[in-house]
Amino acid sequence: MNRLYHVPLSPFCRKVRLSLAEKKIEVELVEERYWEPTAEFRRRNPAEKVPVLKLDGKLMSESAAICEYLEETHPEPPLMPKSAEERYEVRRLVAWFDDKFHNEVTSKLLYERVNKKVMKLGYPDSRNVKFGAQKIKYHLDYMGWLLEQRRWLAGNSMTLADFAAAAHLSSLDYISDVDWNRNQNVRDWYAKIKSRPAFRSILADQVPGFPPPPHYADLDF
Amino acid sequence: MNRLYHVPLSPFCRKVRLSLAEKKIEVELVEERYWEPTAEFRRRNPAEKVPVLKLDGKLMSESAAICEYLEETHPEPPLMPKSAEERYEVRRLVAWFDDKFHNEVTSKLLYERVNKKVMKLGYPDSRNVKFGAQKIKYHLDYMGWLLEQRRWLAGNSMTLADFAAAAHLSSLDYISDVDWNRNQNVRDWYAKIKSRPAFRSILADQVPGFPPPPHYADLDF
Repeated sequence: MNRLYHVPLSPFCRKVRLSLAEKKIEVELVEERYWEPTAEFRRRNPAEKVPVLKLDGKLMSESAAICEYLEETHPEPPLMPKSAEERYEVRRLVAWFDDKFHNEVTSKLLYERVNKKVMKLGYPDSRNVKFGAQKIKYHLDYMGWLLEQRRWLAGNSMTLADFAAAAHLSSLDYISDVDWNRNQNVRDWYAKIKSRPAFRSILADQVPGFPPPPHYADLDF
Repeated sequence: MNRLYHVPLSPFCRKVRLSLAEKKIEVELVEERYWEPTAEFRRRNPAEKVPVLKLDGKLMSESAAICEYLEETHPEPPLMPKSAEERYEVRRLVAWFDDKFHNEVTSKLLYERVNKKVMKLGYPDSRNVKFGAQKIKYHLDYMGWLLEQRRWLAGNSMTLADFAAAAHLSSLDYISDVDWNRNQNVRDWYAKIKSRPAFRSILADQVPGFPPPPHYADLDF
């Protein structure tokens, strides 16, 4: 049985879940409290991170490496374009969200508000929350600017870049930290990606102690 | 003229420099003080990071995306294996060094000792330095364990994984933070990679105020 060891609101796990679902690879989701690592978990991934994918008996970690592997072994439907230039742009944007957006926004909002409580690390640091709430505006504007020129973030087809972005934004939307009124392009893009069947499992996530807002799973948000 | 905007000791820049040199793509190196970003630099890379590569008139950022692009457009000599399984392992290890090793070691030693001084951010935090000095042992052991089973880090040919690892270790070696006596496999591997012509420019780096130790550029270290 294929398995994904994950944490529901982790954007890195969500990116892999979206890729798996889009490619119709069935996996059993297993929640992994990676901040209380067991010997068994360390054996699965010496990096002590999620996601860890068990696929055809093989254990894999690192979300970007997993997504590239899925793309090479399950090419349909394609989540990467054909030309080297377009593939570069997808990878640049995946790194933009998983590094820059993650450092400036996700870690400052989601990790302060949710992870700290779940991991019993104390209260949110209000300077971080303020910093993240400020920075997300710039990122939404940047996405809006990209979407003025393209149908999807990296070009004219849906790619891993859209999944990386949607993974971060959906986790933040779960705690009502995305202002969908800021940019109409971004809102339209999110409505489009949110309505895909691959998104359903993500919209059904529930984290004890953090009920999602009513609009979270609403396709007409 | 092709250009690489870089910082000499940045492991992300060094990884790209090694790829470029191995593929014999000539670039002019331009030092970029990214911590004092100019409007011109922001235009080149809105993420405000190095490296930024100007190749055939096109500006590119994000070291992993750049290296994959170079691999797809300049396949000789190959720095990625052919099979999806082996390619996964290369990408997993590149992420291992650029994320886990970077967070646990490079940022705790190099950034505390060198970047803080160069960027005028104060004195090194001794807890961080102690943490990094402890963690690097585990990473050297992990590399040694991989090299017991393989000629190179990700398999039996030299790949981007070796360049990612060598980029971090060479930057740390510049400030004498690598104990080469800890693991003979790692030492042999580094001697092998260090003697490649692609490594020459890295061994010639000089950072004002931080003279490298005599063994740094010595191929018989």
